[in-house]
Amino acid sequence: MGGDKAPEMVIRGAEIALERLPDLRFLIFGREDEIAPLIPKNSALSKAAEIRHAPDVVSADVKPSVALRNSRDTSMRQAIEAVRDGSAAGMVSAGNTGALMALSKVVLRTVPGIDRPAIASFFPTRRGESVMLDLGANIDCDAANLVQFAIMGDVFARAVLGMPKPTIGLLNVGAEDQKGHEHIRSAAAILRATTLPLDFRGFIEGDDIGAGTVDVIVTDGFTGNVALKTAEGMAKLVTTFLRESFKSSLMARIGYVMSRTALKRLSQRVDPRRYNGAMFLGLNGIVVKSHGGTDEFGFANAIGVAADLCRQGFIDRIRDEIGNLTRELNEKKAAAI
Amino acid sequence: MGGDKAPEMVIRGAEIALERLPDLRFLIFGREDEIAPLIPKNSALSKAAEIRHAPDVVSADVKPSVALRNSRDTSMRQAIEAVRDGSAAGMVSAGNTGALMALSKVVLRTVPGIDRPAIASFFPTRRGESVMLDLGANIDCDAANLVQFAIMGDVFARAVLGMPKPTIGLLNVGAEDQKGHEHIRSAAAILRATTLPLDFRGFIEGDDIGAGTVDVIVTDGFTGNVALKTAEGMAKLVTTFLRESFKSSLMARIGYVMSRTALKRLSQRVDPRRYNGAMFLGLNGIVVKSHGGTDEFGFANAIGVAADLCRQGFIDRIRDEIGNLTRELNEKKAAAI
Repeated sequence: MGGDKAPEMVIRGAEIALERLPDLRFLIFGREDEIAPLIPKNSALSKAAEIRHAPDVVSADVKPSVALRNSRDTSMRQAIEAVRDGSAAGMVSAGNTGALMALSKVVLRTVPGIDRPAIASFFPTRRGESVMLDLGANIDCDAANLVQFAIMGDVFARAVLGMPKPTIGLLNVGAEDQKGHEHIRSAAAILRATTLPLDFRGFIEGDDIGAGTVDVIVTDGFTGNVALKTAEGMAKLVTTFLRESFKSSLMARIGYVMSRTALKRLSQRVDPRRYNGAMFLGLNGIVVKSHGGTDEFGFANAIGVAADLCRQGFIDRIRDEIGNLTRELNEKKAAAI
Repeated sequence: MGGDKAPEMVIRGAEIALERLPDLRFLIFGREDEIAPLIPKNSALSKAAEIRHAPDVVSADVKPSVALRNSRDTSMRQAIEAVRDGSAAGMVSAGNTGALMALSKVVLRTVPGIDRPAIASFFPTRRGESVMLDLGANIDCDAANLVQFAIMGDVFARAVLGMPKPTIGLLNVGAEDQKGHEHIRSAAAILRATTLPLDFRGFIEGDDIGAGTVDVIVTDGFTGNVALKTAEGMAKLVTTFLRESFKSSLMARIGYVMSRTALKRLSQRVDPRRYNGAMFLGLNGIVVKSHGGTDEFGFANAIGVAADLCRQGFIDRIRDEIGNLTRELNEKKAAAI
């Protein structure tokens, strides 16, 4: 029921995802009287989907604390509970981000050894794709949080992007050791000292994001959120300037027509729908947040991300790696005493 | 003597700036034997410039604290002292940013009422140009710092960009009052309550930077630095993708040739040289930092920024406005007791 054009956009998105991945099965949570008419009888989706009626909806602008109190009969909570109970392998929502995170934490809880879950997403770079986290779940992060994010990002890049040994960088204002605030410097020290099989490359700067200098960019939720939205805004600005340039003369207009296919390729490469689907990492279950303003193609991509995470056994891999980290840190602590 | 291609790039930049603003006069600090041969005899520059020999140079990678200790005979320090002594109206350097800020603080000191200077710069938006500060001088900022930055940004936008009533926004992870960390929320409360003639628009997000939602973007130095570099990196990424697209087919190549003039216009709009010249605001003197990797055109723009600040009596205007703020806050404090 979440998202600007729900529930229709969600149903169309499920149809597209099902075409791509025919073995998907859906539990669709929400108001049955609104959802049922959107699914054509005898369609592929009608065979693959089951509607679970939920009378209430978490509204887009409600505070997480309020959403939590009144969540019992909402589609959002019931979908997360389906993940907890094992009736769903993962859930996707285009609803209220803060409420989705708060409910996910309460219902699914974090993996042992993870203090706080993080929001991760991938996006285009000159070299391919990178993952960045946290994108806004945690405004203030200490060194332990950042180290846990690095490990989750590493597992994610291996599992979902299929990278054998992803490189990891901490987002900072300079590459030198003394740069940045205390938390980030301590996190770098821990990551440099660990014997875990991480390819930690130290500090990176904002322009390294687009350059694709590392595969996994680790940052606190405040900086990550600002960086992600700044990048989106800049991509939009340059394409606006490009459009205006093509209108500046007759010659340019003709040039535009001739280059249309090539330019379409460009806009596909920076299409935010392609990178739709922010993962909540660190929970005992798979939760993917779709952008609320996306369309059915964007939503289908978010479903694809959730399916990937489920298939790759992402949660178990996170549990293993974080278990290794916790053991190592405890041993170091014991040795230091 | 600072910058990747100094001193030649600096001298060529001064020539270009002098063509644009023929009443400029230069004091050029550095090694006379290296600089003098670069200035043609009887040229316009030779008439407008005077070389002041300084035997030492602050190297690009030295720590600010070390630079400070050994600064006496450096071109950087002597140029800043010329501003303090009134023999120069302002100074421009493409050298080591950290050292330049540290030396400027020691030699010029901050304007009464300003706790810390900030680095500001402007950049292109959909609506024209905006100013953002701080871009990296202060990693941690409290509410008082952010409020002072807002006032400095306001005066800057009036003085240099000629905006009668600039709009001001605080960079955050959401527009709602409860978003972000404590410092930013307190700063917003002070800016909302002030009777100073500021057009404060509350919180903005990363994508508002490129959209030009406000004229002045206020943020701490960590976030500002990351956002600026992320934006630069994204602009570079999109133009790289664009170039690759034009190479993807013969048709596209022809289209490219036809649109070349229009595309040149685009690259001019996002050319970082155009926005070269970061201002150190809050000091008792004008200091402009040019990008170290820029060329003579970029450096000429940085000189233009310094000239603008001098002509508009920027320092006096900052002193007045910060004086008004300090008085207001003191009165409020007295009334509260």
